[in-house]
Amino acid sequence: MIYGLTGNPTKAALWPLLDRVIRVLDKRGLPYRLAPDLATGRAERDQAVSDGCVAPSVSDVGRQANVVFSFGGDGTLLRTAHAVSPSDTPLVGINIGRLGFLADVEHNQVTKAIDMLEAGDYRISPRMVLEVQADERKLGRNWALNECVINRSGAAGLLRIAVTVNDEPLNTYWSDGLIFSTPTGSTAYSLSAGGPILMPETGVLIITPIAAHTLSVRPMVLPATATIRAEVRSPGRPYVFAVDGVSTEFKEPAISFTVRRAAHSVNLVKLDGSHVFNTLRRKLMWGARASANAPDEDAEDGPHVS
Amino acid sequence: MIYGLTGNPTKAALWPLLDRVIRVLDKRGLPYRLAPDLATGRAERDQAVSDGCVAPSVSDVGRQANVVFSFGGDGTLLRTAHAVSPSDTPLVGINIGRLGFLADVEHNQVTKAIDMLEAGDYRISPRMVLEVQADERKLGRNWALNECVINRSGAAGLLRIAVTVNDEPLNTYWSDGLIFSTPTGSTAYSLSAGGPILMPETGVLIITPIAAHTLSVRPMVLPATATIRAEVRSPGRPYVFAVDGVSTEFKEPAISFTVRRAAHSVNLVKLDGSHVFNTLRRKLMWGARASANAPDEDAEDGPHVS
Amino acid sequence: MIYGLTGNPTKAALWPLLDRVIRVLDKRGLPYRLAPDLATGRAERDQAVSDGCVAPSVSDVGRQANVVFSFGGDGTLLRTAHAVSPSDTPLVGINIGRLGFLADVEHNQVTKAIDMLEAGDYRISPRMVLEVQADERKLGRNWALNECVINRSGAAGLLRIAVTVNDEPLNTYWSDGLIFSTPTGSTAYSLSAGGPILMPETGVLIITPIAAHTLSVRPMVLPATATIRAEVRSPGRPYVFAVDGVSTEFKEPAISFTVRRAAHSVNLVKLDGSHVFNTLRRKLMWGARASANAPDEDAEDGPHVS
Amino acid sequence: MIYGLTGNPTKAALWPLLDRVIRVLDKRGLPYRLAPDLATGRAERDQAVSDGCVAPSVSDVGRQANVVFSFGGDGTLLRTAHAVSPSDTPLVGINIGRLGFLADVEHNQVTKAIDMLEAGDYRISPRMVLEVQADERKLGRNWALNECVINRSGAAGLLRIAVTVNDEPLNTYWSDGLIFSTPTGSTAYSLSAGGPILMPETGVLIITPIAAHTLSVRPMVLPATATIRAEVRSPGRPYVFAVDGVSTEFKEPAISFTVRRAAHSVNLVKLDGSHVFNTLRRKLMWGARASANAPDEDAEDGPHVS
Repeated sequence: MIYGLTGNPTKAALWPLLDRVIRVLDKRGLPYRLAPDLATGRAERDQAVSDGCVAPSVSDVGRQANVVFSFGGDGTLLRTAHAVSPSDTPLVGINIGRLGFLADVEHNQVTKAIDMLEAGDYRISPRMVLEVQADERKLGRNWALNECVINRSGAAGLLRIAVTVNDEPLNTYWSDGLIFSTPTGSTAYSLSAGGPILMPETGVLIITPIAAHTLSVRPMVLPATATIRAEVRSPGRPYVFAVDGVSTEFKEPAISFTVRRAAHSVNLVKLDGSHVFNTLRRKLMWGARASANAPDEDAEDGPHVS
Repeated sequence: MIYGLTGNPTKAALWPLLDRVIRVLDKRGLPYRLAPDLATGRAERDQAVSDGCVAPSVSDVGRQANVVFSFGGDGTLLRTAHAVSPSDTPLVGINIGRLGFLADVEHNQVTKAIDMLEAGDYRISPRMVLEVQADERKLGRNWALNECVINRSGAAGLLRIAVTVNDEPLNTYWSDGLIFSTPTGSTAYSLSAGGPILMPETGVLIITPIAAHTLSVRPMVLPATATIRAEVRSPGRPYVFAVDGVSTEFKEPAISFTVRRAAHSVNLVKLDGSHVFNTLRRKLMWGARASANAPDEDAEDGPHVS
Repeated sequence: MIYGLTGNPTKAALWPLLDRVIRVLDKRGLPYRLAPDLATGRAERDQAVSDGCVAPSVSDVGRQANVVFSFGGDGTLLRTAHAVSPSDTPLVGINIGRLGFLADVEHNQVTKAIDMLEAGDYRISPRMVLEVQADERKLGRNWALNECVINRSGAAGLLRIAVTVNDEPLNTYWSDGLIFSTPTGSTAYSLSAGGPILMPETGVLIITPIAAHTLSVRPMVLPATATIRAEVRSPGRPYVFAVDGVSTEFKEPAISFTVRRAAHSVNLVKLDGSHVFNTLRRKLMWGARASANAPDEDAEDGPHVS
Repeated sequence: MIYGLTGNPTKAALWPLLDRVIRVLDKRGLPYRLAPDLATGRAERDQAVSDGCVAPSVSDVGRQANVVFSFGGDGTLLRTAHAVSPSDTPLVGINIGRLGFLADVEHNQVTKAIDMLEAGDYRISPRMVLEVQADERKLGRNWALNECVINRSGAAGLLRIAVTVNDEPLNTYWSDGLIFSTPTGSTAYSLSAGGPILMPETGVLIITPIAAHTLSVRPMVLPATATIRAEVRSPGRPYVFAVDGVSTEFKEPAISFTVRRAAHSVNLVKLDGSHVFNTLRRKLMWGARASANAPDEDAEDGPHVS
């Protein structure tokens, strides 16, 4: 297996970790391809950079490798996913710092992860991706692994956003914005705005309003076959359209944004024994209530006292 | 087409409406089968009850008719759906009073509905149903069109509910209860407890906690292939398990409830031109913000003033 | 009683209503002072503008009148409140279009309102106001009747906002923004972001986060004696600080915003018989569930079916 | 200072801790009064029980001591508060297990707490208490430090609860129940049901609905001068009225519950240097996002990826 090595060079913790991984790969005789910014960073730190191991771009890393390691957080993995596209090489997010939803392999588990990859103890989790268009306008990114968002910008004021699904009028939202999310993105911005958690295999999309003016408006879960069209109808109010965090600013209303399932997916590697439920429980600290002191005894203590 | 006629006999508005519908059917020579409680009610009101038009039970109404009208609210339609089961005859909810999500044909549209049914201007919307078990215990109902719920009962106090999905531990909830809902039920109890709205065709389930103690716990959307097991682990706390509103009380913990997609569906009739989005907008009053006085002008008025 | 007449000249419905009110006042010999933009608008529409009835500015309207009518929505009343300041002349919001929380006198009740004012059938509701500072920076407005808001702007990305209360660290929020609201403002933006409704007489402030990243963060209600300091700590992320809807853009972090109760209040007129609860019920459509068809019967129908 | 010693005898961790505290008090010659159940428990464990140190009841502990230690969780402190009433002796919650909001002194800080009490390094935080009545019916408790709750019981089904404030109709709620909470209780059940956090000094009450059917209904913050009356209007539906966790079951509707600020308060001891904000941040894990790996760097990583 050829290993692609990419990551966030602005994180100090990256360099010693990367160095450790390269030593492990070298020792085992496992080939790898290094992203150019990581090669440069290593050279600047007087760390060895072998000939033939540096790819000309992250995109080439994706093409030449059988699996791509992304060292960083969830944001780093999002960027890696876009950079290796259109290759569908599976990605592994190696987390530096806090646990991530996408970067769900702890930095001290990398050696074990290499063992498992070589032993075939993993599966590929293909993640649905949203394809987006803004009439004929150019967007910074044209597909999203997490979400795309219409958001107000600059001066305060509600946006009025008309949405259709399969050409059927859904609602005209009055809100700070709207999030169109994949299941993968359901634990990102959509969750902060009150959306539910969607399992990766659900094959659905979600529209989550941000601070909706109408109190009875709720997140809507749609089949993945839906074609969503959204149009801002608030003359004189600037707004942004952000795709996986890359924003484009718009000053005029009435641009029609189309969001629908893309033909391609992003492939994530899930090591055997890991499970999305475990990541959820740890990341959202669901278990934090439990203590050594027998929660059952504690429950006796009285009702509903946090 | 043979019409089944069922409904909620405790609603005064039922009788004149039913009488009107029977006159229309008689006039057009369309056959019908009347539920026995409605036949009795008509007799008591000195309204004609023709021989051969009364079925021995609601279940027989389902077997003998090609379409079943349910006069009442959403609760009435739920009861009708259970009563006609296991027949899969399609159901039409004729709403008396406020608009319903299931009973989405207005009472003054019945004649038009009959026209459309005769003309074939409708489609069948098959609705996913949940099959439920409680170890070997007997439950009042064993499948749900809307939802099944574990809920605390009597004395105050949190329930501790351990949940697995496909035998994988999901979470141990501390809450007033848990709702396991179909897409159809997403606009009922689950919505009140903070759940999202799921389109009927999404093919997913949702677990929505009620007043969860852990603040980071959120509604979870799962694929319809999931087998959910839930177990109350709070010794000494009574609780109920309710299936489409029919409750069974339990005093002991550690009963294992299994929830999964049932093999059968409930068929609802959707008349052409109706759309679930329209029902949502009307029922949840999403459009109520708009007024004759140009919302756009109003928006100019200042930001975010309700 | 001298009547001040102000309003939103961009609303077409203003002119016939204003004309009607002026006729009523003229007929009864009640003096009034017209805001200059309304005088101009009347002249353009060939409506009579009497000598001596036009004030040079809205501020002068406030100084010369005993009560000021604000024709428009809630946003119009906010603008009027700022324009008449520092005079503490009581304000009446005459609603054009949808009912408002501040503009809670219906346009067809104006004549009755004049009767009640002349008869003394009203009370003054003094509303707490927030005084705001941004280090030495100039803000578009320096006090708020509803709220002041830190909000992200332009490119997507979370803000990190450190907040102290009376110099005690409260929390460092990761969110789209923070709303600092009065009780009066609790039914505006704060409500959309998930905040509670505060009665006008509660004498408290509220901090409501917008789409907070940390799921356990909740709206915080503080005593009105609190001095809040907030500082954005996200280098490179532009943001706005909006006071009653007037935004100032900031590109640099670490500006310290101070929010505390102002020495002055804004006086609203409440006509006898009106009550904030009535306005809430009507505006938020709490009663909309009830129907002619006996909700009690309906409740029998089954549980929790919306 | 005479120390009262009370606690939850069902917690195994109580006994060694209590023994340690008694040794410290004995060593310093500080007098104490032991609750009878703790004295019995010590005797059973062959731990010394000095003559003259055992009070006949917890109530006597309150009368005879200058400060009362409550060993346990928040529920234990609630029970202690009720048991020592009507004495207003200040209480210290010594937490066994997880940190509490009321029991906010860690078990390993007890010696330090005694030092601070002797040195006068503390302040008294008087907590507002709600007085409750149920027509002429007898309730298990007639005042609440945290909250009182109307909650449905047994069979599923919405309650319809009519509420007035100072005899003014507020709303008729359709919900699972209603919570009437003090500021102290705002971090307990009310928080789970979506209520805001109220600082202890705010002098307000809050009404928080549980799973309200009408989606635009929100928690309401009222001045402490409010007299609330609530009446269940759902014939045939049993419900409970729980006061600080002690429930009374009702089978008939139309009982009028009155909730208002009580004349007395519960006094909590706050040691210098402790602050409610610190407890909140630790208990709700607001800071858990931060990591050693520079959140600022991490924020660069991309937007809104949890």
